[in-house]
Amino acid sequence: MLQLDIQNILKKKIGSNNGISDLMLNNFCSKNGKLVKQVFRNKNKLGYDFLNLPDDSALLRKIKKFVTEQKRNKWENIIVLGIGGSALGAIAIRDALLPAFNQKPRLIVLDNIGPKYTADLFDDLNLSKTLFVVISKSGTTTEPMVLYGLAKERLMKKFPKNYQKHFVFITDPKKGLLRKIAKKENITTFDIPPKVGGRFSVLSSVGLVPAALAGVDINGLLKGAHLMREAIKVKHPEKNPALLLASAQYLLDHKKSKSITVMMPYSNALFKVGDWYRQLLAESIGKNKDTGPTPVNALGTTDQHSQLQLYVEGPNNKLIIFLRILKHISDPKLGDVLPKEIGYLNNKKMSIILDAAYTGTAESLAKHQTPNLTIEIPKVDAKNLGALFMLFEFQVALLGLLYKVDAFSQPGVEHSKQITKKLLS
Amino acid sequence: MLQLDIQNILKKKIGSNNGISDLMLNNFCSKNGKLVKQVFRNKNKLGYDFLNLPDDSALLRKIKKFVTEQKRNKWENIIVLGIGGSALGAIAIRDALLPAFNQKPRLIVLDNIGPKYTADLFDDLNLSKTLFVVISKSGTTTEPMVLYGLAKERLMKKFPKNYQKHFVFITDPKKGLLRKIAKKENITTFDIPPKVGGRFSVLSSVGLVPAALAGVDINGLLKGAHLMREAIKVKHPEKNPALLLASAQYLLDHKKSKSITVMMPYSNALFKVGDWYRQLLAESIGKNKDTGPTPVNALGTTDQHSQLQLYVEGPNNKLIIFLRILKHISDPKLGDVLPKEIGYLNNKKMSIILDAAYTGTAESLAKHQTPNLTIEIPKVDAKNLGALFMLFEFQVALLGLLYKVDAFSQPGVEHSKQITKKLLS
Repeated sequence: MLQLDIQNILKKKIGSNNGISDLMLNNFCSKNGKLVKQVFRNKNKLGYDFLNLPDDSALLRKIKKFVTEQKRNKWENIIVLGIGGSALGAIAIRDALLPAFNQKPRLIVLDNIGPKYTADLFDDLNLSKTLFVVISKSGTTTEPMVLYGLAKERLMKKFPKNYQKHFVFITDPKKGLLRKIAKKENITTFDIPPKVGGRFSVLSSVGLVPAALAGVDINGLLKGAHLMREAIKVKHPEKNPALLLASAQYLLDHKKSKSITVMMPYSNALFKVGDWYRQLLAESIGKNKDTGPTPVNALGTTDQHSQLQLYVEGPNNKLIIFLRILKHISDPKLGDVLPKEIGYLNNKKMSIILDAAYTGTAESLAKHQTPNLTIEIPKVDAKNLGALFMLFEFQVALLGLLYKVDAFSQPGVEHSKQITKKLLS
Repeated sequence: MLQLDIQNILKKKIGSNNGISDLMLNNFCSKNGKLVKQVFRNKNKLGYDFLNLPDDSALLRKIKKFVTEQKRNKWENIIVLGIGGSALGAIAIRDALLPAFNQKPRLIVLDNIGPKYTADLFDDLNLSKTLFVVISKSGTTTEPMVLYGLAKERLMKKFPKNYQKHFVFITDPKKGLLRKIAKKENITTFDIPPKVGGRFSVLSSVGLVPAALAGVDINGLLKGAHLMREAIKVKHPEKNPALLLASAQYLLDHKKSKSITVMMPYSNALFKVGDWYRQLLAESIGKNKDTGPTPVNALGTTDQHSQLQLYVEGPNNKLIIFLRILKHISDPKLGDVLPKEIGYLNNKKMSIILDAAYTGTAESLAKHQTPNLTIEIPKVDAKNLGALFMLFEFQVALLGLLYKVDAFSQPGVEHSKQITKKLLS
């Protein structure tokens, strides 16, 4: 299971100006243990329904049947047309669990309307071997619908009689424009659970359908999420990983002015989990002018050569969350090839070098009193990734209660949409 | 040429709590016009030498000759082994100027030692068609040297007699380990100018060699940088784009507590310019516990569905810098394909929709008093990209003087390196 290492946020390690005491943390967890129960009690309410996703075995069966049927089409490209919560989960799963190069089929997530990028992609696609997964609850989200339009035009021109088989829609079970089109044009659909918000939807059809089409073990994802949800039911609040994480983040923000949360996985495989978390945290908690963390994503070791200088010597306003992988499944080993000046690198596995860099960074930050904590992940597989998703979703639900904001709405983006619509109408 | 639109940082537009007045900005620019002269006066000093890079026509000739010779090898893959300033420039150039899919040759920048990612890449490579560009000033940087070792082992096994032709080194003209290896093993090299720092090196051999190998117009890059440098010599300080940008950022940080700088290009093509800027700003200015901006990169429209909620309703501690492209070279147009509910999107070019989304976001942020400014880019080509690099480098040199920190050092990362080395030795 995942483990938390919180030594480097504690007063005894990094001093009282920037660290919190064991006692403060324990008391805070004890006092707020009731919030964990409150989240579980709310599990059938709007937003909180993400808690039930690991139990949807009917969905698993439906997806597996669909994927088996689709195998006949020998798709070379699975293209997700979605944005925000309809994109970031699939991207995180892909980068963690699929080969970084030469995926078969390729899973591409088109989550922007960049003209050049889109044009380049359509130039490169063999449309006859491409399946488009269109994801939008309302069916009126501008970006996926523009891309859907572009894809549909090209497909109808090439396959006027059966362009439909190149589409699958993931949308509201009853309402909305994609549902209407699907009915009219006889397109396969999967439901987005109405009480699950976009940024909490990775373990619904939204994340699972693209993942399964690309060959990911979706049983493992749900199983890991299930195990984490049960682990969060632990009796002792101070041993509850979601509560501990939420409490640390909240206390460091409120008591020590750490208003920026950096997520820094060591390994490219988990980088996009940081991107997914960035939406989860920002949209859920960013609702109050006075308080609330700004998420930043970083990558170890890459950002040691870009951001570490700032994290060490710049304003001490950050909490760094490391993701550390304990066992790497692919792990090239260096032979006796480098000259004596750097001979200490010879005969080492990459994971050993990567992990030494992580330790150096975490220790150096601690010495400079920058609070940092580490989530240890036994290995990157579907089960642990599912657990990680559930851990962070639960943590953010708790943060909503701690910060006293509605974690499941996003009223702040409406005004911008109205202006855009007016300009285009 | 590039244009700045600063209306949305002004008091008259966003109010006095978060905006600055025309008068304050003009006076500050006038007062600090002397800093522009100081930067130019320092042009032969350590760090400031980036100013001279656009004039290096001998380097251009050497690179062109080299690229012509290399064409005979019909490389399918150009793999850069570098990290930080030896990677981010090449990535930014690639994403801006080369096709997003199906590049010939592929330009891959391996700027991390993620075990899975590296293993997947080596599995996918046809080594006989692969050139490795190893970039490190000292030749002892852990990450590129580990990757160099892995590549060398594989190449020597396959091509024991001429593995050397699969390498080119970019390193210090005289000193260091890569220089030593190159001499011993007869490997082609390019010099890194000793008085140019990594994060200011994109317009040296560090950025230009990989770019030219991948087919980029490197003349254009230097020409654009040259034009911008001359434009920065303008007589009136308040019309100087680099000084205006530096002044706006400094004043908003100091007077209005905007301690986070978000760079948000509208279009994937410029997203990695934001990543490059992130290093430039963080490593150059992040040296003072009391002050200095934390950079964040974002992408329009993608992050409207991830970060905008926070930027609009969360803590008002951010300056947003938009990059807006005025003319898109590839620009697919939507036909009459979408149903009436979203019919206003039909018959529109993607660029029109993208730009309306930008306007909606900028206006909505201004209405919520979040300061934002826009750099307008006529089109994304080598010339404008070169201009953008020079603009930001000059701006950050000015910020160093304004914040009274040495913009060209990075002492904060040494401690972490020592711990790592000790662990591995």
